[in-house]
Amino acid sequence: MTARLFFFRTGEADGDASMPGILGSKGANLAQLARMGIPVPSGFTVPTLFAKEFQENGQKLSPKFCELVLDGITRLEAATQKTFGSVSNPLLVSVRSGAPVSMPGMMETVLNLGINDEVVKSLEAEGGERFAFDTYRRFLEMYLQAVCGMPLLVVEQPMSTVGQELSLSDDSSFDAPALRRVVELLKALHREKMGSDVPQNPHEQLWKTIEAVFKSWNSSRARKYRSIHKISDDLGTAINVCEMVYGNRNNRSGAGVCFTRDPSTGAKANVGEYLMCAQGEDVVAGVRTPKPLTELANELPEVLTELEGLCGVLERHYRDIQDIEFTIDDGKLWLLQVRHGKRSSQAAFQIAVDLVEEGVLTREEAIFRVEPQDFERLLLPGLDPRAHKQMVSRGLPASPGAASGKIVFSAADAEQQALRGEDVILVREETSPDDIAGIHAARGLLTTRGGMTSHGAIVARQMGKCCVVGCGSLQIIHGKRVLKAGTVEILEHEWITIDGGTGDVLLGKVATREAAISPGVATFLDWASSFHKAKVRANADTALEAAAARKMGAKGIGLCRTERIFFEPECLSNVWSALLATDSRERLEAFARLRKVQRKEFAEILEAMQGCEVAIRLFDHPLIEFLPRKEQEFVTAQEHLAIPGDILKFRMRNLMQSNPALGHRGCRLGVAYPEIYEMQIHALVEATMDLVSRGIDVRPQIMLPFVSAVGELIWARRRFGVLLDKLIVQEEEKLGGKVRCPWIPFGVMIETPRAALIADKLAMHADFFCLGSGDLTQLTFGLSRDDSAPFLRVYKQEGILDNDPMTSFDNEGVGYLMRHACELGRRAKPEIQIGVCLEESPEAASWLYDGSVGIDYVSCSSFRVPIAMLIAARSALTS
Amino acid sequence: MTARLFFFRTGEADGDASMPGILGSKGANLAQLARMGIPVPSGFTVPTLFAKEFQENGQKLSPKFCELVLDGITRLEAATQKTFGSVSNPLLVSVRSGAPVSMPGMMETVLNLGINDEVVKSLEAEGGERFAFDTYRRFLEMYLQAVCGMPLLVVEQPMSTVGQELSLSDDSSFDAPALRRVVELLKALHREKMGSDVPQNPHEQLWKTIEAVFKSWNSSRARKYRSIHKISDDLGTAINVCEMVYGNRNNRSGAGVCFTRDPSTGAKANVGEYLMCAQGEDVVAGVRTPKPLTELANELPEVLTELEGLCGVLERHYRDIQDIEFTIDDGKLWLLQVRHGKRSSQAAFQIAVDLVEEGVLTREEAIFRVEPQDFERLLLPGLDPRAHKQMVSRGLPASPGAASGKIVFSAADAEQQALRGEDVILVREETSPDDIAGIHAARGLLTTRGGMTSHGAIVARQMGKCCVVGCGSLQIIHGKRVLKAGTVEILEHEWITIDGGTGDVLLGKVATREAAISPGVATFLDWASSFHKAKVRANADTALEAAAARKMGAKGIGLCRTERIFFEPECLSNVWSALLATDSRERLEAFARLRKVQRKEFAEILEAMQGCEVAIRLFDHPLIEFLPRKEQEFVTAQEHLAIPGDILKFRMRNLMQSNPALGHRGCRLGVAYPEIYEMQIHALVEATMDLVSRGIDVRPQIMLPFVSAVGELIWARRRFGVLLDKLIVQEEEKLGGKVRCPWIPFGVMIETPRAALIADKLAMHADFFCLGSGDLTQLTFGLSRDDSAPFLRVYKQEGILDNDPMTSFDNEGVGYLMRHACELGRRAKPEIQIGVCLEESPEAASWLYDGSVGIDYVSCSSFRVPIAMLIAARSALTS
Repeated sequence: MTARLFFFRTGEADGDASMPGILGSKGANLAQLARMGIPVPSGFTVPTLFAKEFQENGQKLSPKFCELVLDGITRLEAATQKTFGSVSNPLLVSVRSGAPVSMPGMMETVLNLGINDEVVKSLEAEGGERFAFDTYRRFLEMYLQAVCGMPLLVVEQPMSTVGQELSLSDDSSFDAPALRRVVELLKALHREKMGSDVPQNPHEQLWKTIEAVFKSWNSSRARKYRSIHKISDDLGTAINVCEMVYGNRNNRSGAGVCFTRDPSTGAKANVGEYLMCAQGEDVVAGVRTPKPLTELANELPEVLTELEGLCGVLERHYRDIQDIEFTIDDGKLWLLQVRHGKRSSQAAFQIAVDLVEEGVLTREEAIFRVEPQDFERLLLPGLDPRAHKQMVSRGLPASPGAASGKIVFSAADAEQQALRGEDVILVREETSPDDIAGIHAARGLLTTRGGMTSHGAIVARQMGKCCVVGCGSLQIIHGKRVLKAGTVEILEHEWITIDGGTGDVLLGKVATREAAISPGVATFLDWASSFHKAKVRANADTALEAAAARKMGAKGIGLCRTERIFFEPECLSNVWSALLATDSRERLEAFARLRKVQRKEFAEILEAMQGCEVAIRLFDHPLIEFLPRKEQEFVTAQEHLAIPGDILKFRMRNLMQSNPALGHRGCRLGVAYPEIYEMQIHALVEATMDLVSRGIDVRPQIMLPFVSAVGELIWARRRFGVLLDKLIVQEEEKLGGKVRCPWIPFGVMIETPRAALIADKLAMHADFFCLGSGDLTQLTFGLSRDDSAPFLRVYKQEGILDNDPMTSFDNEGVGYLMRHACELGRRAKPEIQIGVCLEESPEAASWLYDGSVGIDYVSCSSFRVPIAMLIAARSALTS
Repeated sequence: MTARLFFFRTGEADGDASMPGILGSKGANLAQLARMGIPVPSGFTVPTLFAKEFQENGQKLSPKFCELVLDGITRLEAATQKTFGSVSNPLLVSVRSGAPVSMPGMMETVLNLGINDEVVKSLEAEGGERFAFDTYRRFLEMYLQAVCGMPLLVVEQPMSTVGQELSLSDDSSFDAPALRRVVELLKALHREKMGSDVPQNPHEQLWKTIEAVFKSWNSSRARKYRSIHKISDDLGTAINVCEMVYGNRNNRSGAGVCFTRDPSTGAKANVGEYLMCAQGEDVVAGVRTPKPLTELANELPEVLTELEGLCGVLERHYRDIQDIEFTIDDGKLWLLQVRHGKRSSQAAFQIAVDLVEEGVLTREEAIFRVEPQDFERLLLPGLDPRAHKQMVSRGLPASPGAASGKIVFSAADAEQQALRGEDVILVREETSPDDIAGIHAARGLLTTRGGMTSHGAIVARQMGKCCVVGCGSLQIIHGKRVLKAGTVEILEHEWITIDGGTGDVLLGKVATREAAISPGVATFLDWASSFHKAKVRANADTALEAAAARKMGAKGIGLCRTERIFFEPECLSNVWSALLATDSRERLEAFARLRKVQRKEFAEILEAMQGCEVAIRLFDHPLIEFLPRKEQEFVTAQEHLAIPGDILKFRMRNLMQSNPALGHRGCRLGVAYPEIYEMQIHALVEATMDLVSRGIDVRPQIMLPFVSAVGELIWARRRFGVLLDKLIVQEEEKLGGKVRCPWIPFGVMIETPRAALIADKLAMHADFFCLGSGDLTQLTFGLSRDDSAPFLRVYKQEGILDNDPMTSFDNEGVGYLMRHACELGRRAKPEIQIGVCLEESPEAASWLYDGSVGIDYVSCSSFRVPIAMLIAARSALTS
């Protein structure tokens, strides 16, 4: 059925838009336009199956195929009233490939085919000498490339030789004699390289070109492209043969492209550019600077009006922004190609929202017109693409955005300089929790070690701070206060710029552009959140972060880490007392002082998220992180605690761990040092009552971290659950019993593989689950986020792993454990609330949103909240 | 049906041995003996269900119960021709508890019940005054304890008071007047403490005693005992009432215990002891020193003959060594209790083997007569139980056995002292791979930190070296060269003794006894290995260890670690060159030198295991372990490598890891530094060909460690599999093609959770699986063996975890992942070989052996091989 030819001319066509598999996308598209009465050059499409035949036939054209093509030419001659190869009324054609899936630039095209030394004379008679020889040289240039396999640089040589000889600025200044010379040079080139003349026989030109198109399907670059884009080699390409229309005929001719809306802003205006006296390739190739479409009003106003009319028709038909390629032949408009327009992220939102408001799209459809990465691009400042850049190194793009600043090598310097109003970039080998204030003060963070989820990377993303990590080619020479990049030395306080979206490290201050959230995006987010079932929460540790998360649309906090205040300088001595003091009274008092700070923190974050649930993770980090690290701190601590140095060292050494990620942390600390959790729970109840008594609706939740045995949860509930109840009663009584504390659920984090495997047992003792991807991924892979950069680099090079598992959710391993945990948990306790806490990639797994395992919420970094909302809406709409 | 009374007398019984649930074990046992015609005192058992009734009835005896007991008494009177409470022909009885599960010493017993001031006169007439009052005082002593709740110390007071007054050495020297006085004092004691006289009415004595027995079921110590031994509180106790027979009647009377075989050695001889003129309690309580049973031949030869005859009958009936309690009443033998005899580990093997050879047991049955811990006890030297001991601390029992030596605080000292022939105990905070030679040289290892699977513990077990770890109460004061235990200071070179079976640390040199493997054990092991399907292999790294493993019965090596040679002093500089040299020629040469050493190692271990498979794990450890650690080493390395110090430091810092267990290790090193694996594979092929060309049958296997993504395995097979083939061809050609290299399978270790979850995909590229419990447990729990000691201590105290997951296999979490991996692997590739590598606890999971998931072999430390073989045989026989 498909081993036949598909003819089309304006108003009629054998094929239509539904047949890209048979006709290729270009052929199907042209057929559709023709059917709609759009002015397109007449032509025919030979279906894709012949490409396969060609390959199986030892790369030879079959008689059946040739017969079909000749039949097509005959029909084309009839339709155009011209004759292929005629020297009096010649039909020239374009021959283009047309795969079912677009493979831009991969395959061959020859225009103006059918011209020769005789035909050119007929063209000369029809449109003048310049037009005729311009057309001839265009044919030759393409033929030499496509059929003879010469590189562009070689076939361009005749034009530039003649241009230089005659000092011609661009192709439009070539007169007929110049073009004649170019044609002679091109013909000589063929003789030189191929040892023969360019075929004068139009049919020979045709067969040779078609063979070249078919062969180009199997070229190594095309095969590579298909392998990368996962396109089957079996699809094959169609062949489209169309009558030529000539944008290069005269000054009432030209070629251009036109978008039905502004692809950069989404504004509702036809936007495009064109060149007079040119064929389409000239516009794309940039041989001359094209004019904006609006200027066509001065040159050919009736053509512009017709084009604008067609824009409306096409957009209504295709229900999306269209990218149109057109040619004007002596004042007559032809459309050569129409397709969905690529657009900027900002435009994507604007167009989706406008099309809904124009009644073209439903809101549901609009949700699928924007891609997750559009949010990513939209919400961040980036480097000005036009700015001059001098790259010194490239690291891992850990937290997007771009920032410039003077480099400093310590957190303290960063704070100091920032206080003076300086923009600084903090540069460190790697960061520790001590550096948090410095990271906060800096415009961006650059580390020479660590991976995408190293401490610095996580903190920076959490703060929405631009960050590049693992820049192994850089070396900090602390003694010289210099950052060394190969032979380049950048002194402290010199400017650099980092791009957290690409990982680039650039010398000096590079201009950035700020992005704004348009009203379109806001509207879009509103719609998205009205569709999805799984709520989206954010990970946030402070009131500031919570407020930012809320602005991004977060419906709660899924992970509030509580260690931060322990690093605050004013808390540090209390932390030491609490953990190391020999005097138990002193320890108690230290805990009381810490409780005060913690209470304030909790109150602030709960208030910022009023009306929403805030899941507070009890203390998780190994204690050693909070103890004196530097000699000076150690001396201070020793004096503060009045403990002999060797005893203090002995105690501290007992807290050292060979693998802290697997060590004495999480609920294991809660068991060994219950005072810490008791302090935190007490502070939480106080903070809650503070707010409730002021009429504020707060919804705290308590999470027990890093559980691996049901005994841990049972123990913790018995110890801390009872305490919680007691404290609530006590605080309520303090307020005379007039204010009721809300219920504070007690949940468990599932972040060890074993917790996932015993989730049914955990469910019996937990009010909710929080599945944490960070530790679970580390443990499932046996991989440390801080140590993985060196070998992951090699893994990517060698194709062993495509992505860093710490940044791209591992659905196969980690996802299996999470789904398993959900199933076990739901079976044991159907009503249990289940949240999934992802740092990155909330878009990675559809089961998070599609209701298949019943996730109540997904939590991710603030910055990713809109993406998660989009994915959630899409999943809800497709499931 | 069971709410009735069960009567028994020699030759007939209502119950039998199958009814311990109804009658208690004692009642069922007595009924069985009676049925068999064994001479037992007549009596009856009131079934256990009345105990429950008693509790539910407000601790009151019901009329129905009393009626039954009275009916029992009547039947007993008829059987014995005596009358309860009669002053002319009195029946005295014993009243004993009898739970379905034995609870030794937990519950009350009263003997000689039914005596009073009148009845005693009748006994006096029957057997003399001394007999009568000895019997009376025995009743009173027991009654005061059981019914009045007086402590033993108080009720013994009258005997000791009178004994002191009259200077009597033991109870046998008390004459009748003395015993009369004791009886008076005991009666006075009752009056004093209870405010009333001892009941004279035998029935009142009976009811009070029964109430006391029932109440003792609910005493706090009995409840605690049941809770510890997981015995249900609902079982309840039966009541056994028997006619008294009197071992204290005269010099032709006595009491004793007898084993049908020697419970210590297993030798085939009746072994026991007895006392003349005594009741059974005297033998156990040790009031006088009993005589060996053999002496009975001089006193009552016909009784000894009868007893020996009964021993044979009972052993044949019960098909096991029996522990018999007997009484002789005026020359007549009565058996009071018969049960399976407890025996030493050595005896367990001997008896099992002998019983098979005597045709009493089948070999299959014998397998169940020995417990895994019997092997443990048998194969190790232990402390002499009779030696004087002064304990200074207790740590974790990491590697069993006992050792004494002078303490040293460094591996170097240990080596030096050992070279001088000194026995030393190496005492360290914790150990590192540097210490291996020192551990090897020492008699034992003691660490103050680290858990059961810390580095030191593993190395020590591997070497079969006694080891105590995590002895937190000890502190090494390096400056003073002193080990501090509280206030005790032990100087360097002072003697200590450690017991790796208990964790005890003792002052000075405590005598140890060496254990020997008896021929019985060897025979037993032969049988065991004939039954089981899953082979048992050992983990061994050297030829020496392999030879030891073979002696233990190992059928192959399941895990041969290959890092050891990299620590050898003569290799170290080559390791530095291989990893750090800038000159690539120098690196290649260093690898060539390492290959020579590795080849020798491989050849030795393969030869030691000829005919058996040896699974060689490619290099796994983080590289930093092999680089200079101390300043001196660093200087040496710097000179050796001729690299500037700061560059060397920079490179080394790049190899540092924050969590080495999750870091750049295992196959990740193979990808980043393929030269290491290439060197090892080359060495292995060379070693194999060396041996094969000498006609030795060797079967090496290669294992890729720490895989978490299928890409790693594919990459490694492509790179190293191809190399392997090439090297084999090359080496075969070197030998003129006359010698064929055996097939060397390439397998994958499944030791990350993710590897277990994608085992189906891994199976497609692996010849075998090796499931490794060590890393898998660490990752499943998120727990580091080196960091867990501090909180696991608390976990045990608080009952959160019963065991250290690193030493007791976690079947619930780790086992789930392993079974999942086996199922996925078998489904994808049914013929794949699957081994499980456990460091400890090969006995923990039955699925390893029962064929349910098809494990081909289990590998464990040499020391555990016999245990694994036993478990494997048992599983095979029961599945």
